[in-house]
Amino acid sequence: MERTGAAAVIIGNEVLTAKVVDANGPHLIRRLREVGIPLRSVEIVLDDVDAIVDAVARARSRAAYVFTSGGIGPTHDDVTVRAVALAMGRKVVRLPEMVELIRNRSDHMTEEALRLADAPEGAVLLPLQGTWFPVLTVDNIFLLPGVPQLFKFQLEAVLERLRGRPVHLRCLYVRLGESAIAAILDRVALDMPHVAIGSYPVFDATLDYRVKVTIESAEPTPVEDALARIRGGLPADAIVRQE
Amino acid sequence: MERTGAAAVIIGNEVLTAKVVDANGPHLIRRLREVGIPLRSVEIVLDDVDAIVDAVARARSRAAYVFTSGGIGPTHDDVTVRAVALAMGRKVVRLPEMVELIRNRSDHMTEEALRLADAPEGAVLLPLQGTWFPVLTVDNIFLLPGVPQLFKFQLEAVLERLRGRPVHLRCLYVRLGESAIAAILDRVALDMPHVAIGSYPVFDATLDYRVKVTIESAEPTPVEDALARIRGGLPADAIVRQE
Repeated sequence: MERTGAAAVIIGNEVLTAKVVDANGPHLIRRLREVGIPLRSVEIVLDDVDAIVDAVARARSRAAYVFTSGGIGPTHDDVTVRAVALAMGRKVVRLPEMVELIRNRSDHMTEEALRLADAPEGAVLLPLQGTWFPVLTVDNIFLLPGVPQLFKFQLEAVLERLRGRPVHLRCLYVRLGESAIAAILDRVALDMPHVAIGSYPVFDATLDYRVKVTIESAEPTPVEDALARIRGGLPADAIVRQE
Repeated sequence: MERTGAAAVIIGNEVLTAKVVDANGPHLIRRLREVGIPLRSVEIVLDDVDAIVDAVARARSRAAYVFTSGGIGPTHDDVTVRAVALAMGRKVVRLPEMVELIRNRSDHMTEEALRLADAPEGAVLLPLQGTWFPVLTVDNIFLLPGVPQLFKFQLEAVLERLRGRPVHLRCLYVRLGESAIAAILDRVALDMPHVAIGSYPVFDATLDYRVKVTIESAEPTPVEDALARIRGGLPADAIVRQE
């Protein structure tokens, strides 16, 4: 399978037990879309080494870039570094430059604080303006912290280094139900496999449409072609508007 | 591996492309917690048969109950039924009782509308008060619709039939940083593997604590024991409050 785009692994007992609502997944989804990097999957898993190893290995097999969120602090439930190393078949090593950063920061350093300096072998630290804690990366896996403001901050430092490709998107709002428009959508989707066509019904009588159809691709011409074909296959009064 | 609790698969191109923010995952997480069914994972995947087959098979291997969201309408991008059937090694069949429901509802029925009657072999329909569309289930896999108000409605009909177990939870708010409390958390977590201990730092100077420690289990006694041990291992003035 071709490894393209990005995949995310959210490490979060606290999310799956409803102690906090995950903000990092939705933020990552939005930012990747804005910079034009397609996202293949988001997996939320428990703080469990086996579950993380499995999810990271899978993310790596399908995507060029892997983002993890959470589990990189100094406590017993912070197992992301170990799991990423296992998923890559590498050892965990202590990074001397990170030990220095931790020493410079604290007078009474505990042994546990030094766990922050552990990383999969071959890891690279991306320095960050305005904070002592760099971004931990290894082979296009980005190990971001779970705390939302740190996650956002570190994510921007990563995205600056990646190159996306903007997406061309058109939307058609239709007065008919999905069953009535399925045949024409089928035909166009089948003929134009490189155009992604989505069909999203709404069940809200206060809206003036029943289905939103989305048409997107990396190139504008096929999007306009598909839009014209779908419009042509529907009764003229079925279309509420397009965007 | 023991199959316990639940796992969720959110089928959603529209979520991964940031067209909508997923509401079903967070809602499911909250409701499962409230009824006391532990959640093992939430996976958001593209509307792609292979990706869904893979995610459903994995969810089924780790959890007793599997919830899917989305991809069960009549259009070309609705591939959940086929994917669930493939993940189970079953055929897709047309359910006569569902054909009847669709016929009763519409005068000018299209061939595409009948796709709503397709289901994995062995599927069972749970009737719902107040709507014509029943919940589609097969072997403790619940195929829920992606539209949030329908998802919520159908989810309640499913949860009524499942039995959870409430969780006992205590929280400790600590003035010290994670590195300073990691050693005592380590010891207690190691000694008491059936108690889940979480450590969540905050980086917000307006708060009166630096780390929230959560302690939970299905039984109250070990939770209180773990809480007492952690409190005993910290300086008295380190604790801001407990809940």
